[in-house]
Amino acid sequence: MRLPAKVRMVEVGPRDGLQNEAKSIDAATRIALIHRLAEAGLTTIEAGSFVSPKWIPQMADTATVMAGLQRVPGVAYPVLVPNMKGLEGALAADCDEIAVFTAASESFSRRNTNCSIAESYGRIAPVVAGARARGIRVRGYVSTVIDCPYEGPIAPGAVAAVAARLWELGCYEISLGDTIGTGTPRRIERMIEAVAQKVPVAKLAGHYHDTYGQALANILASLERGVAVFDSSVAGLGGCPYAPGATGNVASEDVLYMLDGLGIESGIELAKLAAAGQFISAALGRQPQSKVARALAAKVALKGK
Amino acid sequence: MRLPAKVRMVEVGPRDGLQNEAKSIDAATRIALIHRLAEAGLTTIEAGSFVSPKWIPQMADTATVMAGLQRVPGVAYPVLVPNMKGLEGALAADCDEIAVFTAASESFSRRNTNCSIAESYGRIAPVVAGARARGIRVRGYVSTVIDCPYEGPIAPGAVAAVAARLWELGCYEISLGDTIGTGTPRRIERMIEAVAQKVPVAKLAGHYHDTYGQALANILASLERGVAVFDSSVAGLGGCPYAPGATGNVASEDVLYMLDGLGIESGIELAKLAAAGQFISAALGRQPQSKVARALAAKVALKGK
Repeated sequence: MRLPAKVRMVEVGPRDGLQNEAKSIDAATRIALIHRLAEAGLTTIEAGSFVSPKWIPQMADTATVMAGLQRVPGVAYPVLVPNMKGLEGALAADCDEIAVFTAASESFSRRNTNCSIAESYGRIAPVVAGARARGIRVRGYVSTVIDCPYEGPIAPGAVAAVAARLWELGCYEISLGDTIGTGTPRRIERMIEAVAQKVPVAKLAGHYHDTYGQALANILASLERGVAVFDSSVAGLGGCPYAPGATGNVASEDVLYMLDGLGIESGIELAKLAAAGQFISAALGRQPQSKVARALAAKVALKGK
Repeated sequence: MRLPAKVRMVEVGPRDGLQNEAKSIDAATRIALIHRLAEAGLTTIEAGSFVSPKWIPQMADTATVMAGLQRVPGVAYPVLVPNMKGLEGALAADCDEIAVFTAASESFSRRNTNCSIAESYGRIAPVVAGARARGIRVRGYVSTVIDCPYEGPIAPGAVAAVAARLWELGCYEISLGDTIGTGTPRRIERMIEAVAQKVPVAKLAGHYHDTYGQALANILASLERGVAVFDSSVAGLGGCPYAPGATGNVASEDVLYMLDGLGIESGIELAKLAAAGQFISAALGRQPQSKVARALAAKVALKGK
């Protein structure tokens, strides 16, 4: 088993997670969450998005969140930006990094953003150019890299073509999203192999949903192919919009537990990360969607007896 | 990624699962569950145990369960047997297979069965001999192959020594239990490598708890080392006795989903397996502890709208 010595974990809970929670969380709590995540050692923390509040009311206060953050040197706080109007918001908020997005599935792109994949490049290109002209790094998200909820399996070559285009446009890293969590290790491996022919593997990130419980196995398979960046969400924030009641993002605590066990350096402290997850779960009025968090809490409860 | 072409899944829900559930399930329901599991294609289904009902009241009706089963040719229905009295019960119930157990941790053995590991061999040896003399196969369980809740990490060599002893005593297969679910893929790999020096890898089974969400990653790592038998529990029946409220056995549905995705033949139908899990979960008055089961149920709910 040959694995990378170091992994960077990209925390998407405060944005991708909270935007998929039914309950809106106020800016002060979102700020406190982001501070706790930085304190735990995360170096990339998605802080919000500049998307119309008509579509994503949960992220309406992103400018307030950005203004209230005590930014830690060495920590990036990317925000999601769908278009030039979003970029204006990100620039006004003095963001240091943005993220843009498209999909590997034509039907998903049309249903989700009302444009074809090709049209999405036209939307993304000026955003990337505008950001980079101001020295702002851009991360690219590709959705539905395994299966599309509308059209089924997506060919690895189609994913590679989209990833290559985002790379050419100037994204510094391409996050590969198994949006509905139906991927299994060999399919993930084949997808990574196809994409790595077009984009250096060091520039790829795995963004795997745990809807079918496969995310950690998929991360292990990706580590074995040299992927060393993974997106996850503290306390498993955010459900699966395509299967209400089911799990969405893989929980950061569970990913970190595996990395720690594998001896892979991440710079993150599990106890602090789990505490951040308990904090935001309490604000949402539920238990963390992380097996590690629940096991640690149960152990504490046992010791308390 | 080199993986076995076929895997045998050993279903432990009706015994290891239900004995760890607070609510006792009557014999008729246990029989119906076992019938559904056989119908789904499982070929090894742990049906109960002949342990004193003082210790495990949930398994008190095992003789009734065995008498009521419509046994399917080609399907084995092992029962757990701790001692000669248990073997008598198993013989009286016309069991075709039994399972015996010990631990790789000295403290766990003493706390769990009030005897040392060495003493456990003295308990097990006549049971194995008595069973084999009547043509009954014996499966051996080793607990705490990674960590012990009382003494911490267990050396792979200690696991190998115990597995070798059970093998020499005449067990046809050795099931390696990560009892508290703290294993991660590299530790699992090292443990398997140590045991495989003493017992053929084809005779090993992985029995991994999902308490920390690592079970599927650990199964993947084991598949890569040639292990081709895995224990699991439909609907994730049974919690973790060492962390109340946390997950115990890995859910069979989640294991099968990964095997199917990997193109590994198991002979089991996911829809029927998930239906069996829904059946017993309804009897317990809760949702299945399987992400696949929940995702499939959510999809059905979505289609129903």
